[in-house]
Order: sequence, then structure tokens, then C-alpha cells
Amino acid sequence: MKCLHKRILEEGQALSENVLKVDSFLNHQVDAQLMYEMGTYFKNYFENHNITKIFTIESSGIAPTVMTAMQMNLPMVTLKKQGSKILNGDVYQTTVHSYTKDMNYELTLSKKYINKDDNILIIDDFLANGEASLGAVRLVEEAGATVAGIGIVIEKSFQKGPQMLKDMGYDVYSLARIAKLSKGNIEFME
Amino acid sequence: MKCLHKRILEEGQALSENVLKVDSFLNHQVDAQLMYEMGTYFKNYFENHNITKIFTIESSGIAPTVMTAMQMNLPMVTLKKQGSKILNGDVYQTTVHSYTKDMNYELTLSKKYINKDDNILIIDDFLANGEASLGAVRLVEEAGATVAGIGIVIEKSFQKGPQMLKDMGYDVYSLARIAKLSKGNIEFME
Repeated sequence: MKCLHKRILEEGQALSENVLKVDSFLNHQVDAQLMYEMGTYFKNYFENHNITKIFTIESSGIAPTVMTAMQMNLPMVTLKKQGSKILNGDVYQTTVHSYTKDMNYELTLSKKYINKDDNILIIDDFLANGEASLGAVRLVEEAGATVAGIGIVIEKSFQKGPQMLKDMGYDVYSLARIAKLSKGNIEFME
Repeated sequence: MKCLHKRILEEGQALSENVLKVDSFLNHQVDAQLMYEMGTYFKNYFENHNITKIFTIESSGIAPTVMTAMQMNLPMVTLKKQGSKILNGDVYQTTVHSYTKDMNYELTLSKKYINKDDNILIIDDFLANGEASLGAVRLVEEAGATVAGIGIVIEKSFQKGPQMLKDMGYDVYSLARIAKLSKGNIEFME
């Protein structure tokens, strides 16, 4: 996605070999028009995959995902990050480790909003170690439903998540793929 | 907003005199088309208020706000809920008490995304005691900027927040105004 590459190069801050900050258009300030265009790309790629619902993870995945859901005319479900386990039978939960924040949370999905016939597209803002995406996959599969694909805004291709999810057989489609980061420098995959 | 009233009556769950659950279209599963229509209402009401940016509070405010930002062609900023104070000079922070979760959080705004000439529209999903909206107002005013108005999806008019914000002189525009809740019963304002 050319205009996303351009924004990453112009506004992204490579703070280290692992950290890319895109606070000016995705993670704090949000460019709504760009989110809509991301939605168009996700729609064009996934529209013939018989998707029934789109899942995202709160909170930076919500903006591009709701734009995708509108254009695909599908419901969105936001997987919640809870601090602690909910001890009743109404939800699916799985523990996810956040490397960014160095903490665990319980990714949570109400059983009301999934059934075994669902064919789920998962969309998130970043894919790095794959912990969050893999947590979403576990929730979908625990419900007996199918993961139709994984849409990512920015993939850090040099971290383990992208290859791991592809090796597991998932269709991962990323709008921008970062080959390498170093302080002040950002390189995309060919 | 008629179609929102209809959805609240059909799908909302009044769990007590204070709690209305709208998990099927706003707070967990999200109806993207409905979010777009909310954006149209907010745009129609606020379009001549010289607004420069739209702020929301993570995470349930994001979906209707990004749809508003797109239609008004304005940037959105998501105010983050941090667990603890960030001890550097790059952010504005204020402590907000959540009655729903019975906990405090630090509402956080990077100084990069506001300046004293900004005229800010604040949008959130619910207005009840007004703690979150008032926190957003404090951040805007601490930056020397102006609050142009407050857009709310569902206002619980019988709680203290709506009147308090109006008494302080803010222009509060709510898409649905709940007069009374009781277990299994929802009444709107006239």
C-alpha cells in the first residue's frame, strides 16, 4: 500500500531495532481517511473468502477494522483485553503476553458473538511476535469456528510472528512489511 | 436518532437502574454501518463549530469517532488509558475514576497532538457521571485549547454527568437520551 509506505517513511520513528512508532496517523492521532483506504485494501484482498465476521483487538486495531467492516458489510467484534480472568461460562478467554508493555492480559470474547459456522477475518494494527494474533486465533478455534485470514496494517517481517502464522497455514495479508529497523532508519521488504 | 433508539430498545439490556448493556452493536460487537450513521449525525450538528480535531477515549468511543472524523475530514486523537503516571514532560495526564470498573486510570494525551489554537470536539460512547468526558475536557484546557462541544452516543440523562457539563457551559449533543432504566425496561427522554 504505497501511501502507507510513504506515511511510515515520513512520520514513523524507528526508535530501535524493534520499535517503530506511528503515533501521528495510527496509534494515537488517527488519519480516518487513511483508515478507510486500508479498509478498501483489506476488502479487495479478502472479499471472496466467505467471511462472516471481522475480529480485532482493542484498541489500535479498531479504526482500520471498523472501516473494513463497513466496506465489507460485516459485523466487527472487538476482543477485549481484561486484567484478570472472568470466572463464568459466558466468555472464551486466553492469556496473551505483550512484549511492548511486558505484561499479560486475558483476551476475551463473549460466546454470544461467535458460532462454529463463522469464518473469521482477524485484523490488527501490528504483527511482530504474533502473540496477540495467535491469541485471537485460539479464541476463534476454541469456539469451533474457522480463521479465514489475518489482515495486518504493519508487519515487522524480521520478527517471528509473520513466518510462524504462515507456517501454521494462515493467510496473512499485510499492508506494509518492514524488513529492517534501526535507529532513524526503516527498510521495507521488496 | 431513531434507528439508534430502535436498536437500544430491541437489543439493549437494562441490567439494573444504572446499567445498560449494548454489547451487540456498540461495546463488543460493533455495527459499522450504524457507526457511520452516528458520524453523519455528529457531523450535521457540529459542522459549523470550526472544529480542528476530534478526541475520543479508548476504546468504545473509537468506532463512532473515526466515522465522524472521516466525514468531517478532521484528524482523530484517541486519549489513552494508562495504568500509571508517565513521568516525563511530553504528555498531559489527568486521573479519571471509572464507576463501571471501580478503578482509576491516567487519561493521557501527547503534547504533540494539541496546541492552544485547537478547537476540540470530544466524542464518547456513554455519558453517565461525566468522569471520562470531564477528564478529556481537563486535558484540552490544560493545553490552552478550547472544547468546541461534546458528542455522546448514549446519555444516561438521570445521572449527574449531562447536567453538570451543560451547567459548565459545554455544548453536549447526545444521539440517545435515556430518562430511566430499570431491570428489563428502558425509557427515553421526550
